[in-house]
Amino acid sequence: MEEADETIVGIHAVAEALAGGEQVRSVIVGERRRGDASLKDLIAQAKQRGVPVQTQPESWFQRFRHARHQHVAARVARFEHAFWPSVRARLAAKKDALVVIADHIEDPQNLGAIMRAVEAAGGDALVIPDRRSASVTAATRRAAAGAASHLPIVAVPNIVRIIEDLKEDGHWVNGLTTARGARAYTEVDFRGKCTLVVGSEGSGLGRLVSERCDNLIAIPMLGKVASLNAAAAAAVVLYEAVRQRRQGLVKTGTSRPGNP
Amino acid sequence: MEEADETIVGIHAVAEALAGGEQVRSVIVGERRRGDASLKDLIAQAKQRGVPVQTQPESWFQRFRHARHQHVAARVARFEHAFWPSVRARLAAKKDALVVIADHIEDPQNLGAIMRAVEAAGGDALVIPDRRSASVTAATRRAAAGAASHLPIVAVPNIVRIIEDLKEDGHWVNGLTTARGARAYTEVDFRGKCTLVVGSEGSGLGRLVSERCDNLIAIPMLGKVASLNAAAAAAVVLYEAVRQRRQGLVKTGTSRPGNP
Repeated sequence: MEEADETIVGIHAVAEALAGGEQVRSVIVGERRRGDASLKDLIAQAKQRGVPVQTQPESWFQRFRHARHQHVAARVARFEHAFWPSVRARLAAKKDALVVIADHIEDPQNLGAIMRAVEAAGGDALVIPDRRSASVTAATRRAAAGAASHLPIVAVPNIVRIIEDLKEDGHWVNGLTTARGARAYTEVDFRGKCTLVVGSEGSGLGRLVSERCDNLIAIPMLGKVASLNAAAAAAVVLYEAVRQRRQGLVKTGTSRPGNP
Repeated sequence: MEEADETIVGIHAVAEALAGGEQVRSVIVGERRRGDASLKDLIAQAKQRGVPVQTQPESWFQRFRHARHQHVAARVARFEHAFWPSVRARLAAKKDALVVIADHIEDPQNLGAIMRAVEAAGGDALVIPDRRSASVTAATRRAAAGAASHLPIVAVPNIVRIIEDLKEDGHWVNGLTTARGARAYTEVDFRGKCTLVVGSEGSGLGRLVSERCDNLIAIPMLGKVASLNAAAAAAVVLYEAVRQRRQGLVKTGTSRPGNP
């Protein structure tokens, strides 16, 4: 067991790690579950990839009792962040690059669900702050259901600096907010190079970050609650971007200077 | 402290319970936090509503150490489900009733985020199974950020039966799936009476449920992950329904017989 390894748990997370090309050192199965039909595919998948499958007594899983471990775990190489200058160079070369900045998301499950949504919507990178934010731990990757293996994730000391870089590179930066006066997200043009900034669960976008955005956008709240869960909100806007890129804008807006 | 009460924790959950008209019996604050600026509004809000604010030593919050309690808790009346026949009668009278059925969601945080999305998107009711599903506990309501106070939630023994009722009442029932062959959700008409069925995180829609749906729909996965988080997926489809109801369908489809 190497120092730089960590343990992930649950059938889905382990299956996604195997499928997603993560460096899986070993799969661990509870001894009474080894023959379970539900684990058959997983064990076959591990063997096919040359990953050793070990058996442990059920008591070994006690340490994960707060997670839905399903008597399956895997040792995987610890997550490595992407390097901003390389990611930036790749983004600059892509006409319709789609980036998400998650500004101080505290909950690992939320961060994972955001990673998953960004990857699913064809996003090119996720940027997170390297402090006061959930980081890409095993719990986050579990919630990300494999996205961590495919999506470049950059952790930076200064989000505002990244926004400046992206703007310089031609990105239109949209800050998602629940504040009054923001434009409905469906009236904004998400085609072309585009960045979405999502704020923290409690306090939303920071003032400095919000001031640097080209545009503040909001999801209409038709009931009484004040906001959506951060990952759900990110997914809603990302998929509006996907829809627009495929079907075109519905409402021709005033949203983006220089865009037809 | 009444038998039927439960404790919720965290500034956001307590504030939403107060704002959302839940029956809050008392607010409990850690003694060293009572003067905190971050709690000032909350304490004022409680007092304004005649809810007593009590102080407890920090050790009292130990029991919630696995939750983000922020040294704030509240005792609230336990959640009461809505009664299907009454909800059904109300839905039947509404031309564009929007219902979500969450089929065996296991994770309380996911169920809460779904409740929140349904309420935010102006949905009229959420139906969940009364077994093999997360239930509306304090953790669920915390994740729902107040939605539990506004959204009728029905727990039923048989989801299929409810689908039949809704179809009889003129609902078009869309099952969200990751299975091949489903239609892209953006090509489906969500105007008029409409129900969305969301499956469990692991196994998706059950066969019986899926067979009763009028339509199977999918969210396109543009990356490598196989699906979105259940709450994010529900939010994406619900907000497409909101968009269509406001802006109209983009692609005139073949999706709904009898609809122009």
